[in-house]
Amino acid sequence: MKELLDPDLIHFAEKLQLPEIVVDTKDMPWVPFDEKTCHFKPVRFDFTTGTWTYLFKIKPNQVLTRHRHTGGNVIGFNLKGQWRYAERDWIAKPGTFIFEPPGDIHTLITEDEEVITLFTLGGSLQYFDEENQIVGQDDIFSVYKKYCDFYLKYGLTMNSNLLGK
Amino acid sequence: MKELLDPDLIHFAEKLQLPEIVVDTKDMPWVPFDEKTCHFKPVRFDFTTGTWTYLFKIKPNQVLTRHRHTGGNVIGFNLKGQWRYAERDWIAKPGTFIFEPPGDIHTLITEDEEVITLFTLGGSLQYFDEENQIVGQDDIFSVYKKYCDFYLKYGLTMNSNLLGK
Amino acid sequence: MKELLDPDLIHFAEKLQLPEIVVDTKDMPWVPFDEKTCHFKPVRFDFTTGTWTYLFKIKPNQVLTRHRHTGGNVIGFNLKGQWRYAERDWIAKPGTFIFEPPGDIHTLITEDEEVITLFTLGGSLQYFDEENQIVGQDDIFSVYKKYCDFYLKYGLTMNSNLLGK
Amino acid sequence: MKELLDPDLIHFAEKLQLPEIVVDTKDMPWVPFDEKTCHFKPVRFDFTTGTWTYLFKIKPNQVLTRHRHTGGNVIGFNLKGQWRYAERDWIAKPGTFIFEPPGDIHTLITEDEEVITLFTLGGSLQYFDEENQIVGQDDIFSVYKKYCDFYLKYGLTMNSNLLGK
Repeated sequence: MKELLDPDLIHFAEKLQLPEIVVDTKDMPWVPFDEKTCHFKPVRFDFTTGTWTYLFKIKPNQVLTRHRHTGGNVIGFNLKGQWRYAERDWIAKPGTFIFEPPGDIHTLITEDEEVITLFTLGGSLQYFDEENQIVGQDDIFSVYKKYCDFYLKYGLTMNSNLLGK
Repeated sequence: MKELLDPDLIHFAEKLQLPEIVVDTKDMPWVPFDEKTCHFKPVRFDFTTGTWTYLFKIKPNQVLTRHRHTGGNVIGFNLKGQWRYAERDWIAKPGTFIFEPPGDIHTLITEDEEVITLFTLGGSLQYFDEENQIVGQDDIFSVYKKYCDFYLKYGLTMNSNLLGK
Repeated sequence: MKELLDPDLIHFAEKLQLPEIVVDTKDMPWVPFDEKTCHFKPVRFDFTTGTWTYLFKIKPNQVLTRHRHTGGNVIGFNLKGQWRYAERDWIAKPGTFIFEPPGDIHTLITEDEEVITLFTLGGSLQYFDEENQIVGQDDIFSVYKKYCDFYLKYGLTMNSNLLGK
Repeated sequence: MKELLDPDLIHFAEKLQLPEIVVDTKDMPWVPFDEKTCHFKPVRFDFTTGTWTYLFKIKPNQVLTRHRHTGGNVIGFNLKGQWRYAERDWIAKPGTFIFEPPGDIHTLITEDEEVITLFTLGGSLQYFDEENQIVGQDDIFSVYKKYCDFYLKYGLTMNSNLLGK
């Protein structure tokens, strides 16, 4: 009988497989996402698909800018604090998992406690003003740029591991 | 020895697995993509990830609007005619496979022959004017809407199969 | 100027976009993964791509069966306890993010404390005996079956939300 | 107003974005997939997700080994000839698009004409004998190994472009 995995294949694959990514977030600094309400610690940027993963921290009692997830989805796992979308009737608590489909439009609201959520995002975030006009957007490149700019400004060593290289 | 796939699992999986999608493009009408240069035949809309696949037909001797693939990539297999990007030095011929990464900005140019390419796209296409201002964008929803609008206008029967349902 | 997102498109998209998935894991029971060392709380099964996401709990001082991730990758975020792979020299602590590429072969080892990690997995896990023969495998269907079997056995109400329906 | 894409971001992104993949299949040799019925021309191996894309050529009047797509899906666009699955009642003709979900089990049958289909596959293919026992499997590594072995045997120059590097 032909073996399902012959030793030659395993040996061959070991040379080809991509490097792993291991990132300890505990000792990383929080990078500012916007002027004052949100910070993040990035753990993965996948430039093949345009998706990225980060710990996202939001101050208490904030209403984030209403935005649309254009061309990508949102996957979240809430770690700390409570938040909700103004447009929905559920509340994300510690231990809540969230999948939001492409096209979703929402306004994230925090309560009296700081929030930390692990998010994976794809596509772009397009921010609206009160007349529903798009006034800004983020995607994998703008988020990576916030990270680079902050690390350069403070002379920190960037983690090339985030890119799986 | 424990079997790798016991018959109960196979039987269980058969009830759970998603329906297949089978689309014969030959007899489908070409749907207008823009006012006059491009048409498409959609074969799959994946609303989980925001990606879609279509046959894309472009008239000869066209210069399409310069655009950025924001938050998603482009995967193409050229079937007919020749085209190139103004920003690159290779030419897509019948049988050429193309992967363009998220963030790519390019201007597609056709030659003397009509082009037909099978494309899978994610994220959004953001179109630029000559001052590099974004003047329009497409994503899975706007493309699906073009398809629906055309089919409704001419009383054609939409293929729910495109959605894998 | 053409608006980037006209109100008709937004209205159209809202009817099309997939339902969100919201799962509170706190009050879910732990489902046995194997005979005695591991349990899980599933939060998402994506039958389009064959990937699934769950909280995975492992008893202290365990050595899990050595396995290969055939045809899919592993993405993890460790929440509690410490673990390592016998084949690597790093340790996953609370707050460690991990990406393991397709093809990876490893043996997970826990220490004196219970471990809880949020994992997203694709492809299949193929388990090896000491002669490197494959003695079992898991994929999205076998994991979903463990979940169903447990819920049926105890008369629990399954959460159709896990499937995004 | 804040620009949606400021020139600095574009300049920054251009340095970061992954290289494109452009593969002209016309002049590539056909690589043997098995002993005599199937050949392929690979165009992309994505070692991040374990998916690969190739032109797949099958001789006329063949019945391929029944197999299961474990942990991944199949996306195909038929270019030449006709084929069907013994387990289904539709026929793939030139211009037919096919999506088969993870878990699908099928037996591909060709007719009097050679078949060429563009396939993207993920996960693994597990082949069955007549007693439903798994007698072999393929995944991204085994397919890449067939490609390497053939190119090495005949002293051909491998196309590193297939990996997007």
